[in-house]
Amino acid sequence: MLKVFSTLLTHIERPLYTSIMAKSKFEYVKSFEIEDKVLPNCWIVVRIDGQHFHKFSDKHKFEKPNDIRALKLMNKAAIRVMSEFKDISISYGQSDEYSFVLRKDTQLYNRRGSKIMTYINSLFTSSYVYYWKEYFEDKKLLYPPSFDSRIVLYPTDENIRDYLSWRQADCHINNLYNTTFWTLIQKGGLTNVEAEQRLCGTFSSDKNEILFTDFGINYNNEDEIYKKGTILLKKRITHPRSGKKRQVILPLHEDLIGNKFWALNSEILDIKS
Amino acid sequence: MLKVFSTLLTHIERPLYTSIMAKSKFEYVKSFEIEDKVLPNCWIVVRIDGQHFHKFSDKHKFEKPNDIRALKLMNKAAIRVMSEFKDISISYGQSDEYSFVLRKDTQLYNRRGSKIMTYINSLFTSSYVYYWKEYFEDKKLLYPPSFDSRIVLYPTDENIRDYLSWRQADCHINNLYNTTFWTLIQKGGLTNVEAEQRLCGTFSSDKNEILFTDFGINYNNEDEIYKKGTILLKKRITHPRSGKKRQVILPLHEDLIGNKFWALNSEILDIKS
Amino acid sequence: MLKVFSTLLTHIERPLYTSIMAKSKFEYVKSFEIEDKVLPNCWIVVRIDGQHFHKFSDKHKFEKPNDIRALKLMNKAAIRVMSEFKDISISYGQSDEYSFVLRKDTQLYNRRGSKIMTYINSLFTSSYVYYWKEYFEDKKLLYPPSFDSRIVLYPTDENIRDYLSWRQADCHINNLYNTTFWTLIQKGGLTNVEAEQRLCGTFSSDKNEILFTDFGINYNNEDEIYKKGTILLKKRITHPRSGKKRQVILPLHEDLIGNKFWALNSEILDIKS
Amino acid sequence: MLKVFSTLLTHIERPLYTSIMAKSKFEYVKSFEIEDKVLPNCWIVVRIDGQHFHKFSDKHKFEKPNDIRALKLMNKAAIRVMSEFKDISISYGQSDEYSFVLRKDTQLYNRRGSKIMTYINSLFTSSYVYYWKEYFEDKKLLYPPSFDSRIVLYPTDENIRDYLSWRQADCHINNLYNTTFWTLIQKGGLTNVEAEQRLCGTFSSDKNEILFTDFGINYNNEDEIYKKGTILLKKRITHPRSGKKRQVILPLHEDLIGNKFWALNSEILDIKS
Repeated sequence: MLKVFSTLLTHIERPLYTSIMAKSKFEYVKSFEIEDKVLPNCWIVVRIDGQHFHKFSDKHKFEKPNDIRALKLMNKAAIRVMSEFKDISISYGQSDEYSFVLRKDTQLYNRRGSKIMTYINSLFTSSYVYYWKEYFEDKKLLYPPSFDSRIVLYPTDENIRDYLSWRQADCHINNLYNTTFWTLIQKGGLTNVEAEQRLCGTFSSDKNEILFTDFGINYNNEDEIYKKGTILLKKRITHPRSGKKRQVILPLHEDLIGNKFWALNSEILDIKS
Repeated sequence: MLKVFSTLLTHIERPLYTSIMAKSKFEYVKSFEIEDKVLPNCWIVVRIDGQHFHKFSDKHKFEKPNDIRALKLMNKAAIRVMSEFKDISISYGQSDEYSFVLRKDTQLYNRRGSKIMTYINSLFTSSYVYYWKEYFEDKKLLYPPSFDSRIVLYPTDENIRDYLSWRQADCHINNLYNTTFWTLIQKGGLTNVEAEQRLCGTFSSDKNEILFTDFGINYNNEDEIYKKGTILLKKRITHPRSGKKRQVILPLHEDLIGNKFWALNSEILDIKS
Repeated sequence: MLKVFSTLLTHIERPLYTSIMAKSKFEYVKSFEIEDKVLPNCWIVVRIDGQHFHKFSDKHKFEKPNDIRALKLMNKAAIRVMSEFKDISISYGQSDEYSFVLRKDTQLYNRRGSKIMTYINSLFTSSYVYYWKEYFEDKKLLYPPSFDSRIVLYPTDENIRDYLSWRQADCHINNLYNTTFWTLIQKGGLTNVEAEQRLCGTFSSDKNEILFTDFGINYNNEDEIYKKGTILLKKRITHPRSGKKRQVILPLHEDLIGNKFWALNSEILDIKS
Repeated sequence: MLKVFSTLLTHIERPLYTSIMAKSKFEYVKSFEIEDKVLPNCWIVVRIDGQHFHKFSDKHKFEKPNDIRALKLMNKAAIRVMSEFKDISISYGQSDEYSFVLRKDTQLYNRRGSKIMTYINSLFTSSYVYYWKEYFEDKKLLYPPSFDSRIVLYPTDENIRDYLSWRQADCHINNLYNTTFWTLIQKGGLTNVEAEQRLCGTFSSDKNEILFTDFGINYNNEDEIYKKGTILLKKRITHPRSGKKRQVILPLHEDLIGNKFWALNSEILDIKS
């Protein structure tokens, strides 16, 4: 029997031996990986964007101009990301995009750009699919959605504030347009093309006037989540009964362009948190 | 009424006007994005890895050393990715990792590295969660998993073959180790620590002998999917009845280190496909 | 005296102690350097270009359309670079530019892009100034000239051949233009503006015809160094008397676009040299 | 004759026509150049280092531990660079290295890293060779020297101050070592190896004591240029007689680690200059 075994072993051996030898022979390919550490002492933004979300929202019959369930699902996924990554100090979301801001001094994954970008993106995507049914109880997810992400560095506090202001100004402009566009269609009976033509070349004041004079809508009274998007902040709160402190992630829908927000939440830009 | 309106308008106007002005004022932050086009005429590998999958497989009670459902779910997610991205010519998966190889001449997202890496990673993650229930019918997904990804360039056909060989040799070595390790525990009654000590310093031949003499297991007879991992290839096949041709994605579990595989599937390395 | 000394020492000590402490306190700034290794297994081109050489050649009254001394000085500087860097297998120069091609497998400076690019550029510049007087005996160098450089990777032999062909085709086109342009001025008595207008929109055939019919110049008979630029190759030659072999750097002025050159000098693309 | 010509032309034509076609056919290789813009709003440091300067200083018999002519030549080359590049606000040199600091808001070469790094390096090298004879009148330059350069970004004023402090602390430590080392040899009669052994493991205080007790040298009285290196600053001065203002580049040899220097020269960190 021993002889049989040893013959067998010889037969078994070869491919395995080969593969171990092979592994070290092939391992040189690892040296083709390029290190991608990002510059120290800069704010790191990871911004996530939905891929083909125009089609995705059509297929899933999202309400227009805003589907509150879709926005809440985005927020839920972002809260999941923010609770996992301790060094995210503020996040901002609107429509099908979300920005995560990591502290200047973060050492997350040794500041390797690809790692930071892909893990955050992956966990966001994963959470979006995982929590879908909590927000769209009656609506089945028809296919797996996807998001891309990019990483951008901002050297100063002013730069990171301007970045967030840029996204919130973008939210404001898009939402005023979309609100007027869909009102013209849903209440004014216009076709998509007609609504587009009506809005072509108009200023904010014109859109406000259309909403107010033609439809009696005061844009200022629209929900803040639509006009301002969602800011996620980490806050330590005291439990009303137990008196114990714990960290929570708070969604806010307020202006972050002015100084007031930053005065009230000075810990965001404070390095020692 | 006109007066009331115009007062109101003044009130409404200010923030909106500000935000439009603001947007262009803030837009300079876009210039901080760094272009990341990858070198032309190189094979592009995107490799995805599970994050904390040791814990994930414990929590979800994956069978050891291999859970066929988990592997099939990985394959399903990879097939979804491969059917979306036409320029992926071969994929290879094992354990909680998957490699996607894009053609040297792909112009996908204008060869922007971040876009390629994050979309593929996101769609893979999304599909993993989306199709979970098809493979783990009785087992609820307890929390959203995540994957990281990296992008690596290989200039020559030899390099890309060596890359894939490296991953398959790795699969072989790990699977032999895991098979022996879990046999010692499940059939030999050893603890994890004892099994680890038993295998410390052993060669492939030693592990084969342990399996064969102590447990009557011929490693060569183990399932190919465990020993070789999964290769995904696009093939045009003819429908047996209709005679129509269509493309399918075929999972293979065979050796890709030797020349035979590449002779039989020469279209993988062929640029004009 | 000891007391005096020790007081003095205390006085001396402080700044020094501070500076040593300081050094380690400041050393963190080193971590801001970003690694810039270039992809393995690619041809590396470093191309050098003269800065403001139009003005430089005017100030130094270079002969038009070509100043043989200036070209020979460029070649001399390039030969100096090539003899220092063993892994440069071919160089090509024309006008105020030079390209150096490093072997795919070079490990020079551990393939750090900045190091490779700046050392080659610096040695070239240095040599240009150092050897100036050998070529412009009667003409003083009026101010220090400068060159920029860039680094470009080419994955395949075809790519690197096409790169060199691109530069030689560029040389050909520019030289035909310049030869005709300066002939119109020097022999035809046209002003710069008139010559420019005369050549506007002309094809190669038109320029040839102008040279031949108007001035009796057959462009084909122009010096090869002007029409083809300079190729530098390393060759092992045998000393006619001693019979000893040694390496020399040969300047050639011939076509490298066709296959003949590459067949005759197959060692350039041969990795094992 | 016309016939002869047209035959000739046909003969001439082919290669030229080919080369023009060829050029556009080959031009795709330009797309392999990778854009390398550096992050906006960061201080840019270009640091130049001599290559093999130990050997270079031996061959040219530089005085030890410091050769004032060599340092002045370095300063001259740096002044040339600084007068050419308007956006360099401060430079710092010691031994065979020089650092150039470009303003955070510079748009030089559209912030392309390679261009900035190679032009500065090239002009420095060129000037070093060009001005050699002004400082080493009796000593011929034996061969062309070379320098490498690197580019590093610093996001904040504190970072750039720490960078410069790091280099000055390095100057201090090296100069104390070298001064003691060469005193042991030149005045103490030790060999190089003996001097090295004597200094092994010593602190600054030990070196001061060796200089003072054994050789009567108070290190504090050494020339400031050796102990502090050279700072180059741009200053607007008024001509004593004409009263006209003009910019000059001032060499300073003083402490830049403390706050005093920055208070006195606040324009360096001031963006609007």
